[in-house]
Parts: sequence; structure tokens; C-alpha cells
Amino acid sequence: MLKSTIVSILAASAFTIGIYASDTGVVTSRSVPANAIYKNPKAAVEDRVNDLLPRMTIQEKVAQIIQGDMNGWMDFSNPLDDTLTYNASGLANMMATRSGSIWGGYLVPWQKFVYGVTIGQKFLMENTTLGIPAIIQSEGLHGFTNNGTTWPSPIGLSASFNAPLLQSAAKTMADEAEGLGVSQMFAPVLDLSRELRWGRVEENYGEDPFLTSQMGLAYVTGLQNGSRRNTSSTATARMAATCKHFAAFGSPQGGLNIAQVSGGERELQTYYLRPFNKACVQALSIMTAYSSYDGIPAIANTRMNGGTVNETFIDETVKTMLRTKFTLGLFENPYPYSDYLSTLRTPATKTLLHQMEQEAIVLLQNRNNVLPLSSKSVKSIAVLGPQANRVTFGDYVFFNASNNGITPLNGFKQLLSGTKVKINFAEGCKLWSNDQSEIAAAVQAAKSSDVAIVMVGTWSLDQTLLWTPGTNATTGEHVDLSDLKLVGAQLDLVQAVQAVGKPTIVVFVSGKPVAEPWIAEHADAVIQQFYPGELGGLTIAEIIFGVANPSGRLPVSFPRSVGTTPVFYNYLKGSRPLDPGSITDNGTLMFGHQYVLDSPVPLWSFGEGLSYTTFKYTNLKLSKTTIGTGDSFSVSVTVQNTGKLDGKEVVQVYLTDIISSAVTPNQHLAGFQKVLIKAGASTSVTIPIDNSDLGLWTTGNTWAVEPGQFNVAVGTSATVYLNTTLTVH
Amino acid sequence: MLKSTIVSILAASAFTIGIYASDTGVVTSRSVPANAIYKNPKAAVEDRVNDLLPRMTIQEKVAQIIQGDMNGWMDFSNPLDDTLTYNASGLANMMATRSGSIWGGYLVPWQKFVYGVTIGQKFLMENTTLGIPAIIQSEGLHGFTNNGTTWPSPIGLSASFNAPLLQSAAKTMADEAEGLGVSQMFAPVLDLSRELRWGRVEENYGEDPFLTSQMGLAYVTGLQNGSRRNTSSTATARMAATCKHFAAFGSPQGGLNIAQVSGGERELQTYYLRPFNKACVQALSIMTAYSSYDGIPAIANTRMNGGTVNETFIDETVKTMLRTKFTLGLFENPYPYSDYLSTLRTPATKTLLHQMEQEAIVLLQNRNNVLPLSSKSVKSIAVLGPQANRVTFGDYVFFNASNNGITPLNGFKQLLSGTKVKINFAEGCKLWSNDQSEIAAAVQAAKSSDVAIVMVGTWSLDQTLLWTPGTNATTGEHVDLSDLKLVGAQLDLVQAVQAVGKPTIVVFVSGKPVAEPWIAEHADAVIQQFYPGELGGLTIAEIIFGVANPSGRLPVSFPRSVGTTPVFYNYLKGSRPLDPGSITDNGTLMFGHQYVLDSPVPLWSFGEGLSYTTFKYTNLKLSKTTIGTGDSFSVSVTVQNTGKLDGKEVVQVYLTDIISSAVTPNQHLAGFQKVLIKAGASTSVTIPIDNSDLGLWTTGNTWAVEPGQFNVAVGTSATVYLNTTLTVH
Repeated sequence: MLKSTIVSILAASAFTIGIYASDTGVVTSRSVPANAIYKNPKAAVEDRVNDLLPRMTIQEKVAQIIQGDMNGWMDFSNPLDDTLTYNASGLANMMATRSGSIWGGYLVPWQKFVYGVTIGQKFLMENTTLGIPAIIQSEGLHGFTNNGTTWPSPIGLSASFNAPLLQSAAKTMADEAEGLGVSQMFAPVLDLSRELRWGRVEENYGEDPFLTSQMGLAYVTGLQNGSRRNTSSTATARMAATCKHFAAFGSPQGGLNIAQVSGGERELQTYYLRPFNKACVQALSIMTAYSSYDGIPAIANTRMNGGTVNETFIDETVKTMLRTKFTLGLFENPYPYSDYLSTLRTPATKTLLHQMEQEAIVLLQNRNNVLPLSSKSVKSIAVLGPQANRVTFGDYVFFNASNNGITPLNGFKQLLSGTKVKINFAEGCKLWSNDQSEIAAAVQAAKSSDVAIVMVGTWSLDQTLLWTPGTNATTGEHVDLSDLKLVGAQLDLVQAVQAVGKPTIVVFVSGKPVAEPWIAEHADAVIQQFYPGELGGLTIAEIIFGVANPSGRLPVSFPRSVGTTPVFYNYLKGSRPLDPGSITDNGTLMFGHQYVLDSPVPLWSFGEGLSYTTFKYTNLKLSKTTIGTGDSFSVSVTVQNTGKLDGKEVVQVYLTDIISSAVTPNQHLAGFQKVLIKAGASTSVTIPIDNSDLGLWTTGNTWAVEPGQFNVAVGTSATVYLNTTLTVH
Repeated sequence: MLKSTIVSILAASAFTIGIYASDTGVVTSRSVPANAIYKNPKAAVEDRVNDLLPRMTIQEKVAQIIQGDMNGWMDFSNPLDDTLTYNASGLANMMATRSGSIWGGYLVPWQKFVYGVTIGQKFLMENTTLGIPAIIQSEGLHGFTNNGTTWPSPIGLSASFNAPLLQSAAKTMADEAEGLGVSQMFAPVLDLSRELRWGRVEENYGEDPFLTSQMGLAYVTGLQNGSRRNTSSTATARMAATCKHFAAFGSPQGGLNIAQVSGGERELQTYYLRPFNKACVQALSIMTAYSSYDGIPAIANTRMNGGTVNETFIDETVKTMLRTKFTLGLFENPYPYSDYLSTLRTPATKTLLHQMEQEAIVLLQNRNNVLPLSSKSVKSIAVLGPQANRVTFGDYVFFNASNNGITPLNGFKQLLSGTKVKINFAEGCKLWSNDQSEIAAAVQAAKSSDVAIVMVGTWSLDQTLLWTPGTNATTGEHVDLSDLKLVGAQLDLVQAVQAVGKPTIVVFVSGKPVAEPWIAEHADAVIQQFYPGELGGLTIAEIIFGVANPSGRLPVSFPRSVGTTPVFYNYLKGSRPLDPGSITDNGTLMFGHQYVLDSPVPLWSFGEGLSYTTFKYTNLKLSKTTIGTGDSFSVSVTVQNTGKLDGKEVVQVYLTDIISSAVTPNQHLAGFQKVLIKAGASTSVTIPIDNSDLGLWTTGNTWAVEPGQFNVAVGTSATVYLNTTLTVH
């Protein structure tokens, strides 16, 4: 529930150490000429800012940098109430004290929300001396949260490895929010999933800085690009994206939300800052982390040293607020659009969502090509497990959002409605219980079917229930795990069903990796569906029956157990000695050393994901085999679809700096591209590699590309590839 | 098996990048006058160094900084062979190329070792132009490893919280080694046990920088203080202690030995460097870590930038070698003593060991004062478990060292030999197996007895077996765990015995915390015996029967599970949000958030440990309640023994910097003292607090004590205390 931009946090700090509007003397009445530069839509943004700032009182400045809330003049406590009234004194007070940015992330009838925004902006534009509009803020991590379309959680969006598709998706989120008068969304999250116990793993784009930067950039671009209606040419964005949480927030000690993060400057630069550097250059807002990094709170500002605050620092902060508002065109048009319904939940958005849901699913195991099932040859399927007949969304969705989704069971029913395939459903167990009494029914259903599909995993709750005492969840903000195994009786269910002897397909519906080596080793097929969006229940059925060919890839590695973490693929050289032990199914202890009875090698690594077709890589070439330290280059490879189905392949390029002056990752992703290749066809894929991705953070505290050799590996994951050598002179 | 001082690592680096003796031209014959300053025992050490260095050829310099090995002229492959022969050409070659420090850490007959050292030193003193003796190196982490007395592993030594006692112990280790001609021991280890999966936790003094610094200082002082026989007044040490591993080696990523360490400068200064700063000012040697910290290898030397090495850097390194040798008096007397037997395994050492073994044992749980047992009222005891009839030493002991130890079963037999108490023994299970077939016999033994004592835990191996393929262990160097639970059938054994209904005492014999919440919650008593020394089997019996009153305290916190780590008590403020969940004994899931189904609060925290008597604290006072930023102060408190038995209490002082410019630990130990208090008596304890323990590493990258208030807590652990406030102006 902690919500605050970097601007508002700074403001809060200032406020608590003694800046009050009333401290600063009498406000004299002012008049503003109609031809004031800041009122001129065609004037340069910086000129408008510099014209407006000196006209502001200290009260007005402080009001700009403290976050307000629409509940100051609207009653948003009941999501169903549609009464169009407001509190006039509350409105005046809010606008006088906290009107720079105003939180409006409530689930309320659209008509009422539009009414509230209009009242607020109208007051500011018409009843205040300077007429400075507010930024209206909401959430949009995977869909606009005031009853907009719910998309897969970011970890799922990222699993698509399809940045252009995410950019299109983000555009629809902005479309939905913009019409209602929202001008800032608190996304994307650019934290890295290097600490898997942390509850917010589902909000990230995975463990890798490059993938995160590309998906983050796609989101920011899709959300911001364009301009609000009836604005001038100086309005170059229509929505402020908010890159968060700056920085390194995703690796709290012990996986405990908001705990301190251990790390030095090199680790910060090499991993945590890269997504911000690449994805947020154009973003209009950044939210700070709530944690400390090496003992310095992310919100600490060395310029504020207690007691009093120099007004020039406030001025700088206010200028960023004003600059953003001019860039968004809010001075020209801060109002909702009368036709807002035309951009909400459109058929085109649903089509795009359908594609994203399909591409987000990752096929991890497919022994003897048990998948896809054929509705012609399979006579019956058992749809089992506690995830089978529920809609499991990730966190940061609105109250009861799951009502808009389709359950997997209903997805199978819809898909198979014209066929003779019989569906035998049994829940088998609850997600949140060790009670095994329902397992027998699931076993019976499996016995009665040709194939068993067991759906298990983790769960979160919507933003209302997640924070309600007495509820339960295993992922989401402030929901941190000490174990990554399936909770309760779920593994018992899977094992009991598997023992029936029918082909058994395990589907993990989860917000983070589930660590269950037994399933990896015994299930006939394993599918990972990170928390989906509204069509997830249908698309899992489509994938299983081959209506869509899986093309998702893991944005995060799957450990064998919590005790073997971290397992991210891009560990520093020398950091993963390997002499694994194990415990056999019959309990025999096979002793090793790293680890004594387990392995630091993940069950599935970053970038992995299967297809129903096969791809062959040949003809790996670099545009230049020798480059200078300031040069970029490109990698090309021929990829042939050697199977019988059309399919999408994610071509991935990994680099290794072979000898370096500081320790570098054993490998890191530097490029990827998703391509559709028809069965039997070949295509040449060329992937540009930016010079910056050859660099390291030197002992001299600067980025540099060092002369020497780099290994360039190109393939279908971090573990399967062709390779060649690049020389840097 | 990695063994190297900072000097020899630097040398190895130099060597591999192209410095060879043969590169440097012809060596001319030289004569050294008898009155050369460096030969004058009474000349100042620095003068002797400066006189000797210019006389050395580059070959001789390089030979000083590359570690040699006694196996170059001796056959030490068979620990029983006592043939007194040597390889003359091997000797000459070794001394010409690698004779600065020479590894001699073998288990061989003392007579043969003395012969080898004598041959080697004699060659250097009489057959080389300059006559520079070698430093002979061995191990002594918890006892001299060439068949010297084996002491408890360092984690156990530290559990005594008795620094003066450790200093006395270290003195005996040096006594044993010195007589044989050893002049350097590779100890103490000053790494912190903040990552419990790491195999070498047993080699550390625990998780706390202050405790580690005090125990490390005691070891260094005890080992080094004094001078070799027949040396001059300039010889101010008789043995070189080697502080290792510099620095932060104890927190490898994933707990994997030698993996990279994440951290910044503040964490390095606040935690990892403190023990080195305090304990190693007088130490004659430091060994570097094998890992990197924030991407910089600990052995990296920015002065060596590839290709060629400036001879002045070699000179600096050689000077440190020479300085050490003069300080040790080796130029005057590098030879073993003819009466070396008189200092090996003496009765006085055994007496001291006996005390240490008693004080190292930690009583963690004692429901209904089930302990101590009385040999008068108890008619029979069941001595059970895989640790009951074996000697379990930690790593860094010599081959078959355990033959010198007494098993707990034999300890009970010895202690109870004059009584009527019957001992029913059953192993119950093997340490390394899930086989439960022997549990029934243990249950039967428990049924036949008044009390059940179940001894379980971890195990390591001696330095020969630990590295032998096909052996097994769960702790020790390169033996890293992914889980902290008992291995195999041990918990099943404990649960089966507990179910019998007799008072059940669980003894953990281990090298690190065992994470078994069920035992913490159900056992009538729990005793922690970190890997003991040769008398551990006797002293555990003495503690259980009240011959000795337990006074050990935990140097490391015990987590509930590996997934809840880290659990060190001195976490940074704000880093441990708490809303625990749990799983009840009957399997009911009680959901929380931090963690969902567990708790980040340890089972037992740093500093905890019970006594058979009770202590009451009153009259807490500071010598000054207000001090300046450069001042030290002292804390005094009255401690009363309110029970009926004499007992030793460890008075502990913890500080908290209430408001600071960077994030500081929620509390940290700043003083402790162990005191014997007779039953019913009171004593006033005064503990000095050094100004440096009030400091923090500022954002300006310096240590500073900041004005403000500190909480001063004084008590019997980090969680039970009185407190008061100190003000710094």
C-alpha cells in the first residue's frame, strides 16, 4: 500500500522536518496576466516552467510536492456506489495543500471517477490564482486497475520475450486510463528477481537486467508515446510511466519486503541500475525503493541535512513537477474525455491480450511429445488441482478483478465444446491446506481419463484482499516465502495422480518459480503459466491442445530448493562450484559437496522454454569479428524450423568477457528477438549488440569496454547455443 | 587444501606473469662480512632488513615470496614412517626457489619432523650465502595439527565467551608447535558466520564482529606472545599467527565455498573488517580470501598490472618476510628444541582443555529443570543417537585425530563408574542414512530407562579424509549445505524416542546451527555442543549430571529453517519485518506474511545460553551518561546468583545508535565478561566500552562517532537485558 513518487517522498521528508505553508508569511493577492508565458501552449516547456515558478508562493510550491488523494473530496470507499457528489471543503483543503499529484487508484464506477477528476481539475484551473492542474495517479502494472483489462503479471508479460507485443499492450493500458483522466501510472517495476523469496517477484520482468530493460522500455514507450487530445506540439507524452523501485529493491535481505539490500557500487551498476539506464531515459517519473543499499536509504538525500531546507531544493523539485505537467499537456487539457468508453475493454485489446496470454506460457518438459493433445484422439481428460477451477491473478489488480477472468476448467470446456472430449474435474485439494481427503476423487478422475492435467501453484490476492487481515496468499507485496515448494497437499496430489499411470501434465500457475524437483523429474509434461490475465484459463487449454504453439521462455531460473538459491544464470565467474549430491526417490543419500545433498544448478534456467516444433541454428556470423572499444556490432544466424508445426523461436545472444580487470558475469544476455518461422522454413535473424553491453564497471568507477576477447553465444537459451569469438582492440 | 599467505599469493601472481630467476642475469659470487648489520642480533629489526635486502639477488628475493613445502626433501606421504632420510637434490632445489616460508603441516612422527626441519634450516643457515632461515608453517585452528592436543572447533572455543581462557589455550598450541620448529600457524579465522550454509562456519568465532575480534585477539596474543629460546631482545614473538581470510570470505553467495561476496564499503567496514582491525594489529601474517568482494578478487593488487612487475614491489614484499623472520628470532635460532616432548600434550594442557570443553557447552532448553540429572536419583539413562558413540571433531584436525578423543558413551561410563546408574546404549540410526531399522532398538532402550539422551548433529572429517573421494560429511571446508535440518533419519529417531514419554534430552553435536524447530518445541532439554576437543565426550556427561554448570553462550543464532536465513542478531534497522506464519504439529497452515509459513526470528539468538542457576541484574550504571564524540566509557551492573548452584555468567553489553546518518545495526555487542558467582552471592561487573564501538562508517567514507543518543542494554543475551541511555555531545 506504500505509494509515492520520488517527488512526493522528498516532499514528505521536507514536510516532517518543518516546512509548513504557514511558516512562510502572508500570501498577497496576485494577478496573472493572460499573456503570461506559462499560459502559452506553444512556448517552450522550459520557458513556461521558468515563468511560472517565480509566481508561486511557498505554500503553492509545497502543495506541488506532497501527494494528494481523491478521497479528500470524493467518497470512494464503496466500489459500487455511483453517487455524483463531492465534499467542497475537502476539495479546497486538498488543493491548497496537496495538489501536485493526486492519487486516484480506486475501483469505482467510471462515471463517478470521471466526475471526481473533472471537479478536481476544474477547481485547480478555475478557482486558483495560477491554474496549475494536477497529475492524477493510478496503478497499471499489468492493466489499468480501475476495472481496465487485466493482463498477465509482469513476470508473465516478460516470459513472452516479445517486447513489441508488450509495447502494444502498454498502449492499450494507457488508452484505458487516459480517457478517464489519469495521467500517471505506477509502473513498470524494474527490480530484478534475484531473491526469489521476496513476495513481489511477480511484479518484475525477471532476473536479467537486459531482458528487464527491454521489456521496461517497451512498457514505458507504449504507455507514454502520443499526446493527450487538444494539446499543443509541446505536449510530447500522454501518460507518465513510473519506473520503480529505484534501486535494487528486489534483493532484500532474507527476501523480507523492504529489508536492507547488500551490495557494492559494481553490483549496483552491473545489475540493478542497467534496467533504469536503458528503460527510463524517457520515463517521466521514478519511484524510489523503500530499502537501504549498503546502509544508505534509497530516499536519502544528502542535500537535506536536518532542521531546515533551502528553498532552492524545493524549487528544483517543483520544477520537475511543472515540467512533467507541461510535457503531458495538462495545462491545456487536464480533463477526462467524454467518449472514454470507446477506449475501455475494446475487442482489439482483447485480441492483443489473447496473443499475449498464449505467448506468455512456457513449456518446460514434454517427455515423448505427450503434448500437444489431440481432441481427435484423446477421449477424456482429467482436469485436476486447486488451480483448475479458479482465476488466479497476481497482485496489483482491483477488488474482484478475477470475476473478469475465465478459469482453466471453463477454458477447456469452451475450447472442447464442439468435440467429444470428456472432461473429468476434481479439485483434489485446496491451495491452502494439508487436507488430503479430496485426493482420492482426483485419483479416480485420472483413472477415468486418458490424460491427467494437474494444476497447482501459488496464489496472490487483489489489492483489497491482499491487505485484509485473515486472508491468505503465498505471493504478492508483503507476502514473503521461506520455502519455494508447493504449499499444503499439492505435491501429494501430483504424486497420487502420477501414480495412476496415465500421461500426467503438471501446470504451475504461479507468480514465481516453484521448486519441486520431483515434478521436474517425474511429470510427463510441465507447463509454467505465470499469473495470467483474463484469458489465461482459455489459453492454457489452447496450448495443451495445440491450438497455439508455446513460445514463452523463462525470465527467471527455477531452483531445486530455497536452500540452493540464488540460481540466476548470470552469476559472477567463479561463484558456482559444482559437486552435487542428491537424495534418491527411495531415500538413499548420495553425498556431494556443492551441495552436500543437492545441486546449485537450477531445474530450469533463464531463457529456457520448449516448442512443439524444433529449431536448428547454423551460420553464426558477426558483422565484424574485430571491433574498437567504442563500437557496436551485430550477430546473425540462420534458424530453421525443422519440425512439422509453425512456431515462434526466441533467438538469444549471450556475451562473456573472457578476461577482465574486475570479475564479470559468467555470461549475460545482450540481445534477443522473437521470430515466427513456418514449418520447414528458414530465416536469417540479425540482432544488434550495443557497445554498452560489452562494458564493465571498472575499479576506477567508470564504465569501460576493455580490449580483449568476448565469447558470443547464440541459441535458444542460456544453456543451449552456438558460439564464436569477438575481439575488441 | 588451499593454503597460502598473502605473501605467497602475491608471489604466485608475480611468478605466473613472467618473473623467473633466470631472466635476471648472472649471479656473481658474493661474500658477506661477519659484521654485517643483519647478522647482529641486537641491531634494530628495520636496520637488519635494510642491510640484508640489497645483498639479495632477484632469485633470492623471488624464492622468499613463493611458498615451499617440506615434501621437497622429505617423504611425508606415510604418517607412520619414521625413516630419517632426506632428498639432497630436492632440498637444494627447494631452498633455491621457494624457501621464504615452507609448508610443514603433515602428520608424521615428531622425531622425523624435527629431523626434516633441522636439515632444512641447517642448509639455509650454513649452505647459502646469506643464511636466511625459513618460516615453517602448519595449521593450528583448534590445536596444532601434527598430533598436538585437539581443542574444540573455533565455534566452540568462542561459545565459551571466555577470552582469557582462549588466550591460555592458544599459548599451549604454540608451545606444542614451537618445540618442533614450527614458526607460523594458519589461524585464527576471523570470518563471520552470517551465511550458515557455508561449510566452514565451524572455523569461525561466530556471527558477531566484536566477539570475533575479542576471541581472535586472545588467540593471536596467546599464540605469538613470548620469544623463541636463545634469541635476542629484538625477537618479540615466538610464533606468527595468520589472520584469515581477508576479508568477508564467510559470506559466499549461496553458501558455496569461494563464491563471490556481495557487499559495499559500509558493510565491509561495519561487519567484516572489524575483527581484523581489532584482532590483527599485532598479528604477523594475514591470509587473503579466495573470493571476490563486489567483483574485486581479494588477492587483486592494483599495483600489478600485467606483463612485468616492478622490482620495488617485490622488495616491499620481501621486506615483510624478512621483518617477520627477525621478529621471530629465526636468524638466531631457527631449530627445533631437543626437549620438544616436554611441551607436547602436557597434563597442564589437558586440565586447561577440560575447563574449555565444559565452558564451551551451551544449554539451550531446560523445561521443568529436567537437568542436571542426579546420579543418586536416576537409576538408568538411555544414551542414544549416532553421535553417542563416536568422536566428532571439526575440520582442520589431523588424520585419525579422533583416536585421541573420548566418545560421549565412554564419557558417561567413566563419569558414572562409581555409581549405580545403568547405561542403555543404542545408536538408533547412522548419521548418513535414512535407514530407520535401528530406531526400534533406541525406543526400547528409552523405555528401559528413566531418562533418554539423544545425540544427533552434523559431522566433518579430518584433513585427509575430508578431501578423499567417496567419503561423506556435512560440514567442513568445501562441504556446503543447502539445508540445515538433521540429515537422514535423525529427526525420526528423536521423535520416536520423545514419544516414549520419558524426559528426553537432545544434544546437538555440530559445527553449525541445526535448524529443527520441532526439537526446540518438544524436547525437555536441548544442549548444543559445538564440535568438541578430545575431552568432549566426558564433559557432555559432566554437564548433564551437573558436575559442571553450563556457561556457554551461542556465538551464532539458530534459524528455524534454511529459508529463514540470515538470522544474525545484528541486522540493520528496518530489515526484519515480522508477521510470522506457522504449520502446526497436526499440519494446519497458519498464514502470516513474514514469512508466510515461518518466522525470521531465530529459535535461539546470539548470546543465549542457560545455567543451572539463575542471575538477577540490578543497578545498571554508566561511568558517564554524557560523553564527547572521542570518549570511551564503562558500564557497571550488579549481578546476583539467585539460585542454589555456583555458576558462571556472561555479562553482555549491547549498543544501539538511535539516530544516525547511515543505517546502523539494530544492536551490536560492545563488551562482555564472564564471571564466576557463588550461589547467593552478588558481584559488580564493570565493562569498558571503547569509543570505536560507538562509531559508524559515514557517507563521507570515514569512521565517526555522531552526537546523539545510544541505547545501552546489559544482560544475559541480545534478547534479555536492562537498558539505559548514553548521550554523546
